[in-house]
Amino acid sequence: MKTDMMRCAVVGLSGYTGREVFSLLLNHSGVRVNYVAAQNTVGPVSSIWPEFLNRTTLVCQQFNIKEVTKNSDIVFLALPHTESMKVAGALLKAGLKVIDLSADYRLKSTKTYQAWYGHKHVDPKNISKAVYGLPELFRQKIKKANFIANPGCYPTAAILGLAPLIATRSKSITSIIIDAKSGVSGAGRKASVNLLFSELTDNFKAYKVLCHQHAPEIDQYISSLAGHDLKVNFVAHLLPIERGILETIYVQSKLPITLSQLHVLYSKFYKTESFVRVHPLGSQPEIKNVAYTNFCDIGLAVSQDKKTIVITSAIDNLVKGAAGQAVQNMNIMCGFNEIEGLI
Amino acid sequence: MKTDMMRCAVVGLSGYTGREVFSLLLNHSGVRVNYVAAQNTVGPVSSIWPEFLNRTTLVCQQFNIKEVTKNSDIVFLALPHTESMKVAGALLKAGLKVIDLSADYRLKSTKTYQAWYGHKHVDPKNISKAVYGLPELFRQKIKKANFIANPGCYPTAAILGLAPLIATRSKSITSIIIDAKSGVSGAGRKASVNLLFSELTDNFKAYKVLCHQHAPEIDQYISSLAGHDLKVNFVAHLLPIERGILETIYVQSKLPITLSQLHVLYSKFYKTESFVRVHPLGSQPEIKNVAYTNFCDIGLAVSQDKKTIVITSAIDNLVKGAAGQAVQNMNIMCGFNEIEGLI
Amino acid sequence: MKTDMMRCAVVGLSGYTGREVFSLLLNHSGVRVNYVAAQNTVGPVSSIWPEFLNRTTLVCQQFNIKEVTKNSDIVFLALPHTESMKVAGALLKAGLKVIDLSADYRLKSTKTYQAWYGHKHVDPKNISKAVYGLPELFRQKIKKANFIANPGCYPTAAILGLAPLIATRSKSITSIIIDAKSGVSGAGRKASVNLLFSELTDNFKAYKVLCHQHAPEIDQYISSLAGHDLKVNFVAHLLPIERGILETIYVQSKLPITLSQLHVLYSKFYKTESFVRVHPLGSQPEIKNVAYTNFCDIGLAVSQDKKTIVITSAIDNLVKGAAGQAVQNMNIMCGFNEIEGLI
Amino acid sequence: MKTDMMRCAVVGLSGYTGREVFSLLLNHSGVRVNYVAAQNTVGPVSSIWPEFLNRTTLVCQQFNIKEVTKNSDIVFLALPHTESMKVAGALLKAGLKVIDLSADYRLKSTKTYQAWYGHKHVDPKNISKAVYGLPELFRQKIKKANFIANPGCYPTAAILGLAPLIATRSKSITSIIIDAKSGVSGAGRKASVNLLFSELTDNFKAYKVLCHQHAPEIDQYISSLAGHDLKVNFVAHLLPIERGILETIYVQSKLPITLSQLHVLYSKFYKTESFVRVHPLGSQPEIKNVAYTNFCDIGLAVSQDKKTIVITSAIDNLVKGAAGQAVQNMNIMCGFNEIEGLI
Repeated sequence: MKTDMMRCAVVGLSGYTGREVFSLLLNHSGVRVNYVAAQNTVGPVSSIWPEFLNRTTLVCQQFNIKEVTKNSDIVFLALPHTESMKVAGALLKAGLKVIDLSADYRLKSTKTYQAWYGHKHVDPKNISKAVYGLPELFRQKIKKANFIANPGCYPTAAILGLAPLIATRSKSITSIIIDAKSGVSGAGRKASVNLLFSELTDNFKAYKVLCHQHAPEIDQYISSLAGHDLKVNFVAHLLPIERGILETIYVQSKLPITLSQLHVLYSKFYKTESFVRVHPLGSQPEIKNVAYTNFCDIGLAVSQDKKTIVITSAIDNLVKGAAGQAVQNMNIMCGFNEIEGLI
Repeated sequence: MKTDMMRCAVVGLSGYTGREVFSLLLNHSGVRVNYVAAQNTVGPVSSIWPEFLNRTTLVCQQFNIKEVTKNSDIVFLALPHTESMKVAGALLKAGLKVIDLSADYRLKSTKTYQAWYGHKHVDPKNISKAVYGLPELFRQKIKKANFIANPGCYPTAAILGLAPLIATRSKSITSIIIDAKSGVSGAGRKASVNLLFSELTDNFKAYKVLCHQHAPEIDQYISSLAGHDLKVNFVAHLLPIERGILETIYVQSKLPITLSQLHVLYSKFYKTESFVRVHPLGSQPEIKNVAYTNFCDIGLAVSQDKKTIVITSAIDNLVKGAAGQAVQNMNIMCGFNEIEGLI
Repeated sequence: MKTDMMRCAVVGLSGYTGREVFSLLLNHSGVRVNYVAAQNTVGPVSSIWPEFLNRTTLVCQQFNIKEVTKNSDIVFLALPHTESMKVAGALLKAGLKVIDLSADYRLKSTKTYQAWYGHKHVDPKNISKAVYGLPELFRQKIKKANFIANPGCYPTAAILGLAPLIATRSKSITSIIIDAKSGVSGAGRKASVNLLFSELTDNFKAYKVLCHQHAPEIDQYISSLAGHDLKVNFVAHLLPIERGILETIYVQSKLPITLSQLHVLYSKFYKTESFVRVHPLGSQPEIKNVAYTNFCDIGLAVSQDKKTIVITSAIDNLVKGAAGQAVQNMNIMCGFNEIEGLI
Repeated sequence: MKTDMMRCAVVGLSGYTGREVFSLLLNHSGVRVNYVAAQNTVGPVSSIWPEFLNRTTLVCQQFNIKEVTKNSDIVFLALPHTESMKVAGALLKAGLKVIDLSADYRLKSTKTYQAWYGHKHVDPKNISKAVYGLPELFRQKIKKANFIANPGCYPTAAILGLAPLIATRSKSITSIIIDAKSGVSGAGRKASVNLLFSELTDNFKAYKVLCHQHAPEIDQYISSLAGHDLKVNFVAHLLPIERGILETIYVQSKLPITLSQLHVLYSKFYKTESFVRVHPLGSQPEIKNVAYTNFCDIGLAVSQDKKTIVITSAIDNLVKGAAGQAVQNMNIMCGFNEIEGLI
């Protein structure tokens, strides 16, 4: 029995991200899930998610702050946007470590938050305490953090795909276009006609064209990495698959670069990273190869005039784009091996 | 312009069957859709179903009996069960021809209806006027009918698959097992978590095992064909596809039959039928070959001891299992060529 | 019986495009398919494609030029690239009308052909006789043609998506990026591990990044429309669906344009076209809405600075991207109503 | 480093089962994969299966018995049927433990083997040494075995679904019908038109109706469990998914049984098993819940007359139906915890 292990709580178990966090923690050798809750769903975990039959006897509770506090050392908030900010403050105050998988603490400006999420931020004072949980860029800050704003799925693939270029030659970039394609689970588990099987199978479409709420998140972090303002053109599309994101990123550069220079740049940048795999030249990432894993796979190409760079970046939106990255952040915060439970 | 043509109304346009009826009627040379309505959805048809952009200027109305009556000669009711019986009576009284695609008038006993559909029947007096619209068995009655109870999707495939055996050797049958698999559109267009893409893709399951409401419908019509009571064991399954049903029917018989005898029996039985295709020996129906068509494809096999017969029966649940069969019934009732608009 | 109708031949019946041409011609009121052939497959059409059971008694022949000539007025060549150019010349010489669905006669330069298709062109003298069969741009030429080079699937969506801009403001365009996604049938019906169900389901990837053979076809025709050289950056991706293409086209322009100006431009340009549907503002095309149709659906968006234009263009690769467009070309060449057999 | 661990070889890496065995062994704490081979494919594992990029540096070899012997203690043969029997004898002779995932050593009669697999058995003397690796029934024999005939995918789900009934009331059974549905990976990784994405997506069909080669395997082991001859009627179907099997088993019994008696019988029978989960009453297994796991999930229903029993049995064909069960067998043979590497 995992009795003296770190105690975890998963809040929002009835959603896809909540389930995925729970599943990963079950296989983690250093922690014990001690409390699970949801907003509207109660009952044995195995009745909500029969895949856990015979694997857990936990019962999902109506969310209650006292109970969380009593039963856990670290809390994963897998709640819808605008719900996390109502409870994160109290959990932090109670001394818990908090990893928030919603978008509530990712944007530094409350004005930007309100513009894109349509709600006034109700916990502005904790925004500055939240560390953006992208380990490949912010590992040192994460180590010391008590509060993580876990990155969005699209931004994870985008920022990892862009970081080596932005970090080294941002001044030469004249345009960034991100053509992003995501599996359906990214939209959450809502009873909506738009998400029905019969509407989405055999189908493909763009949505929120040039107006997706993940664009300002990408802008904020690549601008901060560049040291000056950068703005992407971002178009999201819906793939008829459950999980996985592939983004095709077009960067136009005043400075030419050869494919082999580009490959060296990316390979070096991610040399020591366990979860970013730069593909060999000529090989392209595929969603199948990252599904159910915490990997981000990256492929590279350059146009004949060496001024258009095409980066393809693939992740599992539920793992590296959400639950896996959250566990990776926990591992870093809590002194576990960074890959524990993830490979 | 189709100005002097028969005027059709489609009620329940926002569902999958309503859309399918509308789509078929648009390609029918003898009719004109003159009125479309739904219970909760109003607006241009092309905003509800963008596939009809530039193909129609019709506007979907809040359902209104006076408007239907004024604008149409024949009404297709593509409403959920328990809704049709609230309006069919009034439409008949107003002198319209009515084809009801719901289950409301298929079962002859109101007691059975209530037991399986969970509601008291509110229009019992019209049940006996409804002709069961399976043309291959009841064509002569359909010709004279004003009111059609359009068969259920599972029963269509089941009864067509069983009819030649039932009609000729029902006394020797000791057991009928129907293992039925359906695409998701059969469940309708409801905002339900169970019907979400992420729940159903890559998945397969049995549901309503031995307790599906289509079983008594099958029982009723094969018993009537046999002239004595017959009862099937029926298990439904959900396929991760939008449309199509394949039923594997296991008949156990005291009297042995060879495969070639069986094939002759079926080929003769359906010799003059346009929409039933008995596959050559050794060939099996596939859902792909009937999708988007009004065909029912049938395959045959017999066990070595010649006492277990395996019939496979495939249809498109939205066409031969619903809208296509409804149009076929209209063609018969109204004196059109039976295949008009369907091949 | 269709005895005095125009006689059609379909060569390459065992492929997906051949089947699709055959299927469309079966529903065409003005023609009769009189001869079908393939390179390696012989036998009844309904044994090759059981969907045609009871719908045709035609038998697929080993391809033979004399037989084609004797039996047909017009030939659809649905052969793989490099095969069409071996037979088209003889068919033309025999006085037949020819619609070639392969890429063999689309590129005007034999050098470019060889560079992209890896084979020397063996029939250079007929290249200039071939009219590029994109009716929305070349209708007048098609009317007078005996020989059609039917456009590629990706180029059809791309050129239709770009034409209104290219025709009116090509000089202001500084960059064109086409992020194209296609269903699997576009790759043809080859026994290849890469095309297996288990490799492609739940998957998505880019391929031939910046080096797809359809790029020079697009370049050639938009340059000709512009009156000066234009070059696109083209990246192809493989969708886990059978049919359908959606291209997201990013055009950067020195001249700003508002979304409503753009919408007016496109709406006017395609005002009289039966098969191009410009979506209302705010609405985006979906593959489902064009699948099994000859429509090209177009959606529009513009960035805040009015200098990045995003055009989404959706077609069914087997219909408007191949067989449907071929039939549309036949209709134009032979004086049928342009939409006959297609709506 | 796993240097003093048990050394494993995987032969047949380029197939789906080979990949799955490799993947599971990579996560097993007690073993080290030391040799991988295939018949026609050589090169780095990560070039054959890019999902293993950065996870292994192993290189797939042309299969060579000396090399296997030198480098391994236990060999997993993931070869096609008829290939395993050519090499298993030599490996056993060299003192290796062998787990054969092909069908070559499952049938006790060489005559039956030849009848169903179309080839004469070339290694009859080792057939009797092979222990059928279904741990839930044959754990004690597996413990002492050096040679395992790993069960077929369909037989695993069928026998586990039937065992409690067969073991306790086989004499009362009058008929067993197995309606089996499998994902496509069960057919292996062969370049065949029948297995192409475009042929199988949106499709469903029965195949090898009453003549599938897994039927005699099921017959043999349930007869042996019963102590008298039993014969099933088995029909296989192809699901448009990559992985997973669900079998709906219809047992007709002279002796009536209630659903709760049946549930008690199954629950007791599998009480101590880690990998068989009898679902609570009213709940049905789904392929999604067993995909990527070694579980077999079982659901139960009984007809009103208590004489028709419906058992649903779901596994992942690549895991419990192949690679997972192979690892489970290795764990038992080699003294590891039976669930090591599997949960």
